[in-house]
Amino acid sequence: MEYSLAHLQLAVEIIATVSLAFSGLIAGARKQLDPVGMCMVSGVAAFGGGTLRDILLDRRPFFWIENSYWLWVLLGLCILAMLLMRGRHLQFTERAIQIPDALGLGLFTALGTQIALASGLPGIAAVLMGVVSAIFGGVLRDVFCNEIPKAFSDHQPYAVFALLGGTVLILMQQSGISETISMITALCLTAALRVLAIVYGWRIPAWRV
Amino acid sequence: MEYSLAHLQLAVEIIATVSLAFSGLIAGARKQLDPVGMCMVSGVAAFGGGTLRDILLDRRPFFWIENSYWLWVLLGLCILAMLLMRGRHLQFTERAIQIPDALGLGLFTALGTQIALASGLPGIAAVLMGVVSAIFGGVLRDVFCNEIPKAFSDHQPYAVFALLGGTVLILMQQSGISETISMITALCLTAALRVLAIVYGWRIPAWRV
Amino acid sequence: MEYSLAHLQLAVEIIATVSLAFSGLIAGARKQLDPVGMCMVSGVAAFGGGTLRDILLDRRPFFWIENSYWLWVLLGLCILAMLLMRGRHLQFTERAIQIPDALGLGLFTALGTQIALASGLPGIAAVLMGVVSAIFGGVLRDVFCNEIPKAFSDHQPYAVFALLGGTVLILMQQSGISETISMITALCLTAALRVLAIVYGWRIPAWRV
Repeated sequence: MEYSLAHLQLAVEIIATVSLAFSGLIAGARKQLDPVGMCMVSGVAAFGGGTLRDILLDRRPFFWIENSYWLWVLLGLCILAMLLMRGRHLQFTERAIQIPDALGLGLFTALGTQIALASGLPGIAAVLMGVVSAIFGGVLRDVFCNEIPKAFSDHQPYAVFALLGGTVLILMQQSGISETISMITALCLTAALRVLAIVYGWRIPAWRV
Repeated sequence: MEYSLAHLQLAVEIIATVSLAFSGLIAGARKQLDPVGMCMVSGVAAFGGGTLRDILLDRRPFFWIENSYWLWVLLGLCILAMLLMRGRHLQFTERAIQIPDALGLGLFTALGTQIALASGLPGIAAVLMGVVSAIFGGVLRDVFCNEIPKAFSDHQPYAVFALLGGTVLILMQQSGISETISMITALCLTAALRVLAIVYGWRIPAWRV
Repeated sequence: MEYSLAHLQLAVEIIATVSLAFSGLIAGARKQLDPVGMCMVSGVAAFGGGTLRDILLDRRPFFWIENSYWLWVLLGLCILAMLLMRGRHLQFTERAIQIPDALGLGLFTALGTQIALASGLPGIAAVLMGVVSAIFGGVLRDVFCNEIPKAFSDHQPYAVFALLGGTVLILMQQSGISETISMITALCLTAALRVLAIVYGWRIPAWRV
């Protein structure tokens, strides 16, 4: 059971990281970065959120240093994508990664919140760490591309689901529900809400200026 | 005495942090961020400077993790402000927070420099840490809003007073004056200079291109 | 021998850091920052790459805290430059620092990779740390000036030579060649390639949109 769960987590992690890496490649291509810049922005998008969380929590080694084959995977992926992708594929790819990205939102939220809890953080700070894990890869990607972060400005619910998922995880664990069950619930809830938001085009109401 | 000083420090801290949080809300509103983005930028403005200082000094836990009720205060403040504020209030609010912000400049300068000194940093590096504490909340706020940081570009003296206040603090302590007295002096001096600069519209001379 | 090597390293370090500091001053002047902002961006350009590397590796104290006279050097340099430089000098200075900057690229690559190796990082992550040391000063300088980082977008080979130099350093050390020899080789190779790229105007082929 634990064994197949670990496999499941690895599978979701690969799917999520690869979709984040693609989001960086697309953003870089739109800004006409050179191939080196595209790889860098892709790496920032894929690993930036978890790395910032670990800096804030003072955890070492980072995920991508402990499992440094991930850097090879990222490099291979970037080279392959640049060889195969064309400009007309960008929009299609952007839509194709929305669903795996929703999975990633759920996973990084659950993982980040859990890691922060295990580091002894109080509830609200742990939820915030989950949100940071989940969205700051994309935020840093946009900062390096000289854009206002999409997660702050596109009025689509994204970070708010991470907030919700993390809160549910904490409430469940405080009610005595096991770590595994509460993480899976938070992951599924966050990802499902995000998919619904994409399918039905939910919008965050704007602050009335 | 020590007791009422601690109360005074807390009061200044609340005033300063709230005015920084407002500066983030205003910047976010100007860029038409969604409410989630506004909260995030508000949090970065309020806690970014101290957090960066603590990362550089390798201090944990952060202020907002040790006193995590601050995150609730910030969240409540943001929600309340978004419910009550209107576009026509923005400019008024921006002017209204200039004086509490000057207090914050003084406090964070004195606090940051003192913390860095206590960590064993040499004088000039401690002053720099005071400046980082005082201005990088605003700098990161502007970076996330895709603007050149105002503290670097608006030609109003701001960081320079932090530099001055920190230097005075260090010189006083090296002359054997007590920690409390030198911190209060640095705070008052920095804040007073900033208020004078606002009232009289002082400008930093531009580098002659 | 070791003694004169240390002198050589110090000389290259001064040349490299000063040229990075100048690049920050130029970028700040172009964006019409005020003198305080120009000093800040200059400092970020000069020390940002090594500082980010040390944060990622959890190393303290930073170079500029351990050798805090560097902060005085930077401050003096900035003031002197602002007194003596004029707008018409900007383009000339930008070209004049290209060669010392190439030396810096080589030095920071070799130094960063070696430090990361000594911290026990696997090869590819150590190379990445060398690249981060060498280019993120400039990257952060451009972020604070609200520009897409030149290292990602100007289609001139720069980071790619750091990647190559770091890889050569690692391969040499794995073949049993001494630390000193492999570092000098990596430094010279990286710097020489960068100089050739400047002289012959080499370009990175763009990703075909």
